[in-house]
Amino acid sequence: MTFRIEKDTMGEVKVPADKLWGAQTERSRSNFKIGAPASMPLEIVYGFAYLKKAAAFTNCELGVLTEQKRDLIATVCDEILAGKHDDQFPLVIWQTGSGTQSNMNVNEVIANRAQQLAGKTVGEGEKTLQPNDDVNKSQSSNDTFPTGMHIAAYKKLIEVTIPGVSRLHKTLEEKSKSFKSIVKIGRTHLMDATPLTLGQEFSGYASQLEHGLTALKNTLPHLAELALGGTAVGTGINTPKGYSVKVAEYIAEFTGLPFVTAKNKFEALAAHDAIVESHGALKQLAVSLNKIANDIRMMASGPRSGIGEITIPANEPGSSIMPGKVNPTQCEALTMVCAQVIGNDMAIAVGGMQGHYELNVFKPVMASNFLQSAQLIGDSCVSFDEHCASGIEPNCAVIDELLNNSLMLVTALNTKIGYYKAAEIANTAHKNGTTLKTEAVNLGYLTAEEFDNWVKPEDMVGETE
Amino acid sequence: MTFRIEKDTMGEVKVPADKLWGAQTERSRSNFKIGAPASMPLEIVYGFAYLKKAAAFTNCELGVLTEQKRDLIATVCDEILAGKHDDQFPLVIWQTGSGTQSNMNVNEVIANRAQQLAGKTVGEGEKTLQPNDDVNKSQSSNDTFPTGMHIAAYKKLIEVTIPGVSRLHKTLEEKSKSFKSIVKIGRTHLMDATPLTLGQEFSGYASQLEHGLTALKNTLPHLAELALGGTAVGTGINTPKGYSVKVAEYIAEFTGLPFVTAKNKFEALAAHDAIVESHGALKQLAVSLNKIANDIRMMASGPRSGIGEITIPANEPGSSIMPGKVNPTQCEALTMVCAQVIGNDMAIAVGGMQGHYELNVFKPVMASNFLQSAQLIGDSCVSFDEHCASGIEPNCAVIDELLNNSLMLVTALNTKIGYYKAAEIANTAHKNGTTLKTEAVNLGYLTAEEFDNWVKPEDMVGETE
Amino acid sequence: MTFRIEKDTMGEVKVPADKLWGAQTERSRSNFKIGAPASMPLEIVYGFAYLKKAAAFTNCELGVLTEQKRDLIATVCDEILAGKHDDQFPLVIWQTGSGTQSNMNVNEVIANRAQQLAGKTVGEGEKTLQPNDDVNKSQSSNDTFPTGMHIAAYKKLIEVTIPGVSRLHKTLEEKSKSFKSIVKIGRTHLMDATPLTLGQEFSGYASQLEHGLTALKNTLPHLAELALGGTAVGTGINTPKGYSVKVAEYIAEFTGLPFVTAKNKFEALAAHDAIVESHGALKQLAVSLNKIANDIRMMASGPRSGIGEITIPANEPGSSIMPGKVNPTQCEALTMVCAQVIGNDMAIAVGGMQGHYELNVFKPVMASNFLQSAQLIGDSCVSFDEHCASGIEPNCAVIDELLNNSLMLVTALNTKIGYYKAAEIANTAHKNGTTLKTEAVNLGYLTAEEFDNWVKPEDMVGETE
Amino acid sequence: MTFRIEKDTMGEVKVPADKLWGAQTERSRSNFKIGAPASMPLEIVYGFAYLKKAAAFTNCELGVLTEQKRDLIATVCDEILAGKHDDQFPLVIWQTGSGTQSNMNVNEVIANRAQQLAGKTVGEGEKTLQPNDDVNKSQSSNDTFPTGMHIAAYKKLIEVTIPGVSRLHKTLEEKSKSFKSIVKIGRTHLMDATPLTLGQEFSGYASQLEHGLTALKNTLPHLAELALGGTAVGTGINTPKGYSVKVAEYIAEFTGLPFVTAKNKFEALAAHDAIVESHGALKQLAVSLNKIANDIRMMASGPRSGIGEITIPANEPGSSIMPGKVNPTQCEALTMVCAQVIGNDMAIAVGGMQGHYELNVFKPVMASNFLQSAQLIGDSCVSFDEHCASGIEPNCAVIDELLNNSLMLVTALNTKIGYYKAAEIANTAHKNGTTLKTEAVNLGYLTAEEFDNWVKPEDMVGETE
Repeated sequence: MTFRIEKDTMGEVKVPADKLWGAQTERSRSNFKIGAPASMPLEIVYGFAYLKKAAAFTNCELGVLTEQKRDLIATVCDEILAGKHDDQFPLVIWQTGSGTQSNMNVNEVIANRAQQLAGKTVGEGEKTLQPNDDVNKSQSSNDTFPTGMHIAAYKKLIEVTIPGVSRLHKTLEEKSKSFKSIVKIGRTHLMDATPLTLGQEFSGYASQLEHGLTALKNTLPHLAELALGGTAVGTGINTPKGYSVKVAEYIAEFTGLPFVTAKNKFEALAAHDAIVESHGALKQLAVSLNKIANDIRMMASGPRSGIGEITIPANEPGSSIMPGKVNPTQCEALTMVCAQVIGNDMAIAVGGMQGHYELNVFKPVMASNFLQSAQLIGDSCVSFDEHCASGIEPNCAVIDELLNNSLMLVTALNTKIGYYKAAEIANTAHKNGTTLKTEAVNLGYLTAEEFDNWVKPEDMVGETE
Repeated sequence: MTFRIEKDTMGEVKVPADKLWGAQTERSRSNFKIGAPASMPLEIVYGFAYLKKAAAFTNCELGVLTEQKRDLIATVCDEILAGKHDDQFPLVIWQTGSGTQSNMNVNEVIANRAQQLAGKTVGEGEKTLQPNDDVNKSQSSNDTFPTGMHIAAYKKLIEVTIPGVSRLHKTLEEKSKSFKSIVKIGRTHLMDATPLTLGQEFSGYASQLEHGLTALKNTLPHLAELALGGTAVGTGINTPKGYSVKVAEYIAEFTGLPFVTAKNKFEALAAHDAIVESHGALKQLAVSLNKIANDIRMMASGPRSGIGEITIPANEPGSSIMPGKVNPTQCEALTMVCAQVIGNDMAIAVGGMQGHYELNVFKPVMASNFLQSAQLIGDSCVSFDEHCASGIEPNCAVIDELLNNSLMLVTALNTKIGYYKAAEIANTAHKNGTTLKTEAVNLGYLTAEEFDNWVKPEDMVGETE
Repeated sequence: MTFRIEKDTMGEVKVPADKLWGAQTERSRSNFKIGAPASMPLEIVYGFAYLKKAAAFTNCELGVLTEQKRDLIATVCDEILAGKHDDQFPLVIWQTGSGTQSNMNVNEVIANRAQQLAGKTVGEGEKTLQPNDDVNKSQSSNDTFPTGMHIAAYKKLIEVTIPGVSRLHKTLEEKSKSFKSIVKIGRTHLMDATPLTLGQEFSGYASQLEHGLTALKNTLPHLAELALGGTAVGTGINTPKGYSVKVAEYIAEFTGLPFVTAKNKFEALAAHDAIVESHGALKQLAVSLNKIANDIRMMASGPRSGIGEITIPANEPGSSIMPGKVNPTQCEALTMVCAQVIGNDMAIAVGGMQGHYELNVFKPVMASNFLQSAQLIGDSCVSFDEHCASGIEPNCAVIDELLNNSLMLVTALNTKIGYYKAAEIANTAHKNGTTLKTEAVNLGYLTAEEFDNWVKPEDMVGETE
Repeated sequence: MTFRIEKDTMGEVKVPADKLWGAQTERSRSNFKIGAPASMPLEIVYGFAYLKKAAAFTNCELGVLTEQKRDLIATVCDEILAGKHDDQFPLVIWQTGSGTQSNMNVNEVIANRAQQLAGKTVGEGEKTLQPNDDVNKSQSSNDTFPTGMHIAAYKKLIEVTIPGVSRLHKTLEEKSKSFKSIVKIGRTHLMDATPLTLGQEFSGYASQLEHGLTALKNTLPHLAELALGGTAVGTGINTPKGYSVKVAEYIAEFTGLPFVTAKNKFEALAAHDAIVESHGALKQLAVSLNKIANDIRMMASGPRSGIGEITIPANEPGSSIMPGKVNPTQCEALTMVCAQVIGNDMAIAVGGMQGHYELNVFKPVMASNFLQSAQLIGDSCVSFDEHCASGIEPNCAVIDELLNNSLMLVTALNTKIGYYKAAEIANTAHKNGTTLKTEAVNLGYLTAEEFDNWVKPEDMVGETE
């Protein structure tokens, strides 16, 4: 491998000749060999590309950067956003907690790529752009990293999470309507209870996701607040007047998302409660999805020795040893995602609570956990929807059999003969292994005709529309 | 001890003669000897009192309960709410996960107390009220317990949590204004950084709590949805027409809080995502408060060998062995509360994710963790406000000394001489143990006069109004 | 209420005349109105009683305390351990994080009670014992509180947790033997799988608890290390030579438990990793118990529309609205405990990770979460054992039916005809709703006789002894 | 791209022609598009390679596999372990929770690669090895995946985690010895306390890691237990007699690690408490490391306006905006790792608690979180050691100044004049901003000479060797 010499304020560093990054990136590569390389999410890098371009436009408009420099920066940012430089960002999550080294990685790549665009050779001659003075102008890692984090997080929620959950929500609502006339046994405490319709069960799932989406959307305004303009400690040192509002406007324009400058920059650097807040809603979704997936696999259990009230699609052979086995694998992938998201919520809380003075230095770990959760929930909802939920079908024969056997239909008699006599009927039928009707008549509490009139599962499910 | 005989559908049970509870409560006492007795929060019992009264009014209005029975039930509920029967609720959190036994505890106490009010003897003669058929009319544990849970949780947030946090928020805002002219060293990565005002630091804390309160209030509409009317499985079996809307109106009237009937009763029984959602906001507040309390104790550290920029009230001797020691004890109580709330959030997630079919049977553990967190955050904010935050004073001499020593004032020179030369000045001063000004002039990058004009801490803190 | 005046180094305080506590306790009551009063666990107070007595004996033996003072201190400690002064410890968990105020509470109560024992009046005349100079001699809160914490935690594990878990473990082992011949369908992914015996299933549960007990016992040596003798910062300032080893010996003697002095007192004050470690094992037990309880309630589900392979005791009416309903309430109590313990583990981690310099100031919250978990696991295992596990019975008819229906018996044919043909048989039987035997013969892969010889559930369960 | 046709029991699937995987791998790729591709850790694949080879040797030895097939399987396994087929394992964590598809991925790659080794073309002609009948012989996903998981986890602990932590432990012990004579101010509650040596502080850190390593090693025996031989549900169906013990011996031989067959296979499939247990020890290490890293960055804070008692290596420029800034970046990377590990512990608990019947289907998420934690702790300890801990130096001038200013030296007077008079001296000096000596003499409690004899910091640190 051939190298060139790059410099920073600490001296010279050898950098692979074919790479666009500079001295500080190389130092970080060497100083933080923790876990797999390049673990810093590319979404963060793209967030930086948006904000560097926006900063260049704002700096130019406010008279502190030339148009030529602005355009060079913007061009490289667009290249980054087009995925042309993905291999130029080799750093890991486990670096400095402010993400300074990833900020410098972006600054260095932009400056060196601009050198190329200007027809020069990287590492030779006068620098067309200085990484700190030009690319990072009116910025600090302390306000850029949280800005990149919010851009990446917001985009992921809008582009992946919310569409994924919404798609599953829509399917569950449709199933709720399709199944609205299928009366089945209800179960509480896993035990037989009074009937409801399969559609009502699915309406509960849909309602969970609807509430979860509302909760998630409630957190977006906080996440839309950008730290940029706070620079080193929140005071905005070394920014031109009017910078913070304008730079947020440019970011909003470039991303098409409603970003605004944070009302309080001190909070925006020193705390990442917006990340905690939005991830709290992701955790809520995980809690909901875990319940839904569990119910579906229990209802689909069998095929012969389980509950078997519904059928889910058979997507693959389920066992390497048991021939013909089919498993609720989408439920399993989804609930594993839920476990991960619940764990990530704790990692984020632990990071979020430990800011010190003017800076929280758990930024990369908070960002990476957030982005993983948001991606996994979105993707797994789509996968679950496509390969499981949309193919759910009722097994009406099983449903009917389990419904009609149930002793809990006796509940309909409470208002006719009172709870205590009704209990006597149910207990007797349970003990004798007989039917409710038999024992109701035997005990003399009502006639067979009355029983037939009063104990109708289809009348026990309330108004279903 | 003397006993009387009580009966339920399983048979006879001996109950202490001087207690108002009945057979099912006694069975639960005997079957669940787990942890301290009577651990079920009284707030839940009071929530039940509201809803039992509301159910009685609704049942009467809808023609399924006599006015006499309604009034008896209402009278006992009012007595319970007045705290007259606190010792009649001996059950623990660790019972059935639907809270059925606590529902029956309330039903039995109301029925037996009504027997007394009717001039009869408990356990003798015809029952004036039947626990299941009258007091529990149009209800199930499955919809009453979550309703009681929401009433208790909502009330606690409104009466304790929000006022407590708001009070602390107000103090932090006031401090922010009082301290707006006190320029001090900023710190990022715990290391010296550019200056800001002490008021700006406090504005960040205030902003965190403001966002936290907004987040908490965003969750209230979900928490305002009541399960009552869903009865056994969400279908509303055994309720008269119009019941669920009306009973929520009565609860709203009796509590003075904006409760409404849940749009989807199946969710309301089978999932407690509203509890998960609101507690997520409590966890966010815990994350914020932990950061704030940490900052304050670090800034107050010393008195002679720490940071010492602020003074906090000395409320008690701090050490049993070190004479004259004073400690940031309110910060410690508050951060311990934060640790508890973050743990509780996980207990609630674990409970919330494990609902099965028509019922989540982690209701008591979710409710008790929620109520503990809501109480602790409210109380500890008041305590912290009264005994710490409101008494914070700046140590201006220390603040000035630490500010003027700092090498990071060099940042002001970036826009004058560039980042690299500025770094050289700072590094040289650090190495030589001298001042920035000395080295700036020695290196020939600027004159002493320029230094004095350009490096003014008070000009480095942005617009502070 | 009447008051007397007590003093500490900060001045005078009014204390209720009938209470034995002094000025610092009263200050704490007034300064920390957070949550319910007296939330500091009594077990901690008892831990203090052991250590104060041990310190008095050691101090006397080493010549720094008179025999008369030693005996007075010991007498009061014995009274405290006999439960005679339980109402003298009104403080809350949410106080100073070192527990100084609870240490002083004990010191003050001992001193004032000694005043009574010496025939004097509390608050009058010369003090027989000085709280700081005599009762707290050779001690600091910083070493006494963690010592009291370890004593309380260790005792709780030995007296409650381990016996409770062991009792349940024994029952599960016995059930495993009783059920060793009951062949039933296995289930993986909740789906029908190859057979095993009910005894084998229970042997897995027993094995989980056995491993859990081993894990818990592995943590005891760390928990047996006592901080006492480290005093203020770990150096043992103001202790006589030989103190730390001897005081641990006395504590071991008085408690009958194998306590030793901590090898490193700096760790013992500044970190509570021993608490983190032991609670990790409690969390592991919670994870195990949750699995076991879930399985049992799923297998007991029904009675008519669930799995119904086993019967569990019916301990109480299960529903306030559904007559005759019986629920797996012990499983529910146990799994709620598991949720709590898992949450507590996080609270303890959050506290444990935040020690600063020479002291961790999350002691009370760590101790109280630990003690709650240890108590709840022990108690709930006993309750679950007594009211559920010991009464579990197989429903052999159901077990046989579900076993013989299963398509996964086909697995026995893998080694005879290969996985692919076996799969074809199973898939065809599933599609046609027929039996394996029918399709095996129809497809021509084997004869009916071969089928009967090869597919025997009782031969598919391995060696069961 | 060109494709070939592969088949499984469900039919035909198109597979990229240049890939060695088969139908089931391809189905999984298509059915589980969740998160980044190939997220299943390669360590798990290598674990499978060990066990497939061991199974082949055992099957051959027990007479159910030919030597030719054994050798083919072994050859491919060795190729996999040499990293030659890393790109043949494209599946994600978020698949079936038993990891069946990854097991089949390995089976398919081995079979197809064997086809090549046998001189045939993949997808053409008779199969040299059948994936299910030969490669998977005497195995199920249900026992192979947990076996692969344990192999991977154990190896990672032995090869990465324990060496990494041990290396840092050694450095901390060395520093403890180097610093044993440097007396400094102690701090409790972040406030000035009695002195100790810097070496004593570091001995506490070393002791934490020593206890943590012991705790981790205590968990290894459980982790050494292998599920292999349990096959589908733990009964060992379709395994030859003697298989399970022998296959574990082969694995032990091939890996050089002390693996044994699990005593109870039902636990080994249905629960992953061994993973929960070992990760609990990793969490404990995270708790310890967080404390240590926090202390070090606080002690190194400054350089001029912080504590500044120690210097840590300056590895990179710390700020993109503040010239000359150096930050405790290794502490930050390490504490971010701690946050991640604490979160991972929760993900693992949530997975571990949700096994159902004969199988826990959270295997991949548990394994991946475990492996990440084990890698990150090991790597970050090495990084922290190399780039921070080993370069820590005391700033003796600062240490002396902070020590001699402290009012808490007064504690030495407790045993001379009592706690109360000592407190009066300290409080007066604090109020007047004077020295202890001045006020001690002014108050008349001792002479200047006595003060100098009694208050010697170097006598207050106990026995330091």
